[in-house]
Amino acid sequence: MSIITLTTDFGIKDHFVAVAKGKLLSLMPNCQIIDVSHKVDFYNITNASYIVNGICDAFPKDTIHIVCVDAELYEVESFIALHWNDQYFLAPNNGILGTLTEQYPSDLIVELEISDSVKCAMDLFIQTASKISSGEKLENLGKVVESCVTFVDVKPIVANDGNVIRGTIIYEDHYGNAVINVSKSMFNEVGRGRNFRMSVGTRYKISRINKFYSDFNLEVKTLKDYEGDALLIFNELDFLQLSLYKSNPVKTGSVKSLLGLTYRDSVTIEFETKEQE
Amino acid sequence: MSIITLTTDFGIKDHFVAVAKGKLLSLMPNCQIIDVSHKVDFYNITNASYIVNGICDAFPKDTIHIVCVDAELYEVESFIALHWNDQYFLAPNNGILGTLTEQYPSDLIVELEISDSVKCAMDLFIQTASKISSGEKLENLGKVVESCVTFVDVKPIVANDGNVIRGTIIYEDHYGNAVINVSKSMFNEVGRGRNFRMSVGTRYKISRINKFYSDFNLEVKTLKDYEGDALLIFNELDFLQLSLYKSNPVKTGSVKSLLGLTYRDSVTIEFETKEQE
Amino acid sequence: MSIITLTTDFGIKDHFVAVAKGKLLSLMPNCQIIDVSHKVDFYNITNASYIVNGICDAFPKDTIHIVCVDAELYEVESFIALHWNDQYFLAPNNGILGTLTEQYPSDLIVELEISDSVKCAMDLFIQTASKISSGEKLENLGKVVESCVTFVDVKPIVANDGNVIRGTIIYEDHYGNAVINVSKSMFNEVGRGRNFRMSVGTRYKISRINKFYSDFNLEVKTLKDYEGDALLIFNELDFLQLSLYKSNPVKTGSVKSLLGLTYRDSVTIEFETKEQE
Repeated sequence: MSIITLTTDFGIKDHFVAVAKGKLLSLMPNCQIIDVSHKVDFYNITNASYIVNGICDAFPKDTIHIVCVDAELYEVESFIALHWNDQYFLAPNNGILGTLTEQYPSDLIVELEISDSVKCAMDLFIQTASKISSGEKLENLGKVVESCVTFVDVKPIVANDGNVIRGTIIYEDHYGNAVINVSKSMFNEVGRGRNFRMSVGTRYKISRINKFYSDFNLEVKTLKDYEGDALLIFNELDFLQLSLYKSNPVKTGSVKSLLGLTYRDSVTIEFETKEQE
Repeated sequence: MSIITLTTDFGIKDHFVAVAKGKLLSLMPNCQIIDVSHKVDFYNITNASYIVNGICDAFPKDTIHIVCVDAELYEVESFIALHWNDQYFLAPNNGILGTLTEQYPSDLIVELEISDSVKCAMDLFIQTASKISSGEKLENLGKVVESCVTFVDVKPIVANDGNVIRGTIIYEDHYGNAVINVSKSMFNEVGRGRNFRMSVGTRYKISRINKFYSDFNLEVKTLKDYEGDALLIFNELDFLQLSLYKSNPVKTGSVKSLLGLTYRDSVTIEFETKEQE
Repeated sequence: MSIITLTTDFGIKDHFVAVAKGKLLSLMPNCQIIDVSHKVDFYNITNASYIVNGICDAFPKDTIHIVCVDAELYEVESFIALHWNDQYFLAPNNGILGTLTEQYPSDLIVELEISDSVKCAMDLFIQTASKISSGEKLENLGKVVESCVTFVDVKPIVANDGNVIRGTIIYEDHYGNAVINVSKSMFNEVGRGRNFRMSVGTRYKISRINKFYSDFNLEVKTLKDYEGDALLIFNELDFLQLSLYKSNPVKTGSVKSLLGLTYRDSVTIEFETKEQE
């Protein structure tokens, strides 16, 4: 039984997703279809990329991941199938899969051949998934290529003789948390255990990273009193994340509504110049 | 293994959909349940009808489609099961399935018998799906009838000696595209290859139909410059569709927010009166 | 084949839900995963509790229900597995499952043992579900306890010598209906068939309970004319519910937008003091 996952910006109101599922089930009656997200920000490659990165370790071997975002047949130069981490990823060759291949190279990348019967990218992905599922070798589905497009997205900058990291908010999640493109390993490498300070708006200077959300000094205030306070944490993907404690975009507020920081905004982490042991 | 699809206006927050799925799985442990949409506009038959039309060709033979919209047990006169296109459709007899039978007649239409144990329309559909799935003949599930209610929805009007089509926006999709109730075949039949002009608000006169979304004159502007521009296209269901290029209801805008045109608004297509060869 | 249901406040945009599903499928390749809701109000135990109560009778024997709301590993004192109504419920021991055990006691409650490898509550629930699914006895998964935390939520108050019930709105559904924490049995017990009056804002005094939504006096107005009118009904879970006829939060309005009543507001039901036969 094949597992197929779907990541799109199709939304959940229209017939678009169900049509894809109906076609998948027509070709692969026993496949198990899992929705990853149909609420990717419209045409947003960075967004899709972050979500794909989020799921890439969770699924069983041989899972086929379809990522259909900003994938107009007549606009995208090519569509690729990637074998990576023992799984298959199908996407437009627009950089979405770059976060994967930047971690480590793909075993095999194929530019998919597009037959005349293909009317949209999703149809191409469905046909490809069906072929992979029935045992067809990836190299028979198109032209093997050396590499795929790597998204030239904003990267964090290390400045000022290695004492400052300038990061960017690359993702806002359901809770209103703001994910910063600074990985735990980068933070530790640049910081080397030094104290740091991050200025957040005019109100906050954050100088520590919570081990978990409720990791506060309870001698000063109760946990309840910390609700709505800003905090830094490494999230489950080991990215630095700016959060409010008990963040609630609908009621109390989020990083965006309360701190005024949103997607694409930059943040600055300053490390102490005099190193501490 | 039966495939059951669900199209409702139940939303995705409450327990309503899960209760239906639990009951389906209790009766049919091996059924595969596919959500088509639970975000149909409240009680909106036109909306449901368009979505059902969207999926009617995508699923395998014998799929059972449950459409539960505006289906109060004590308000709807009858509930029907339809065998059409080798699939089953269960819905209130309120016109939702009219777009199907208007394309070509149904093999069999049955007004479902309602037992005393049935407390709501969804329960009736679940019981019916279970019976169909276990091989019960449709004609044994109620009274065979000749036809079902056809939705007396707005139809496009051909006026002015065959030179003008007055259409109506019947659906707005996730991307903010506005679907017009003018089919490709009707457009071609009335237009007979003539030039046309559609006035859209005060800003646009559209006089061509894009072959694909990015089908623009790239000698004048770059593709990037066309973002947000209005265009006409025949969508995947062959309906005329008014779109913005890279439409994004959250950021740049949609047909509704930028052109001021929304569900139920009318649009006028004027063909050149002097025919061209 | 195990059925696993998921009730969370994770939302549907991010990778969170898909990660849980991928892990479930890795451990239980043949499990059937059903989404109950991922739109539970943020951290809202009352909300989660109501939804779980809504599904507790719909699923087959041995279904495993995972409820992951307000379940931070370092905040919640314990996590429990409950065998109740021939099904399994996994949740933080924060009161979510109280509405179940208040109906009748659980066969078995276990405080789950948390191994070092567990990084978040969802992982604990996934591992536990997998063990239950493979036949492991609940009592081997942690410490058997006598009872679980019962949510000390607002309860309806019977006042004024048994002539008044003060209830509270505990849930707002997709249609904008407001569910009141007064059960049919409580209403009948206190009311003993007496006439009653509920004041709703300044506009309405409701003095009857509709048998079904469209149960109106059609000699006075047509059904169409009743659209938007307030009504009381016992909902499918036998809770008293304040609704608008054809309630439509997007267009005509909801209890919240038109009557000004929302989550946590109280309502008063006054019964006639002179009893009637």
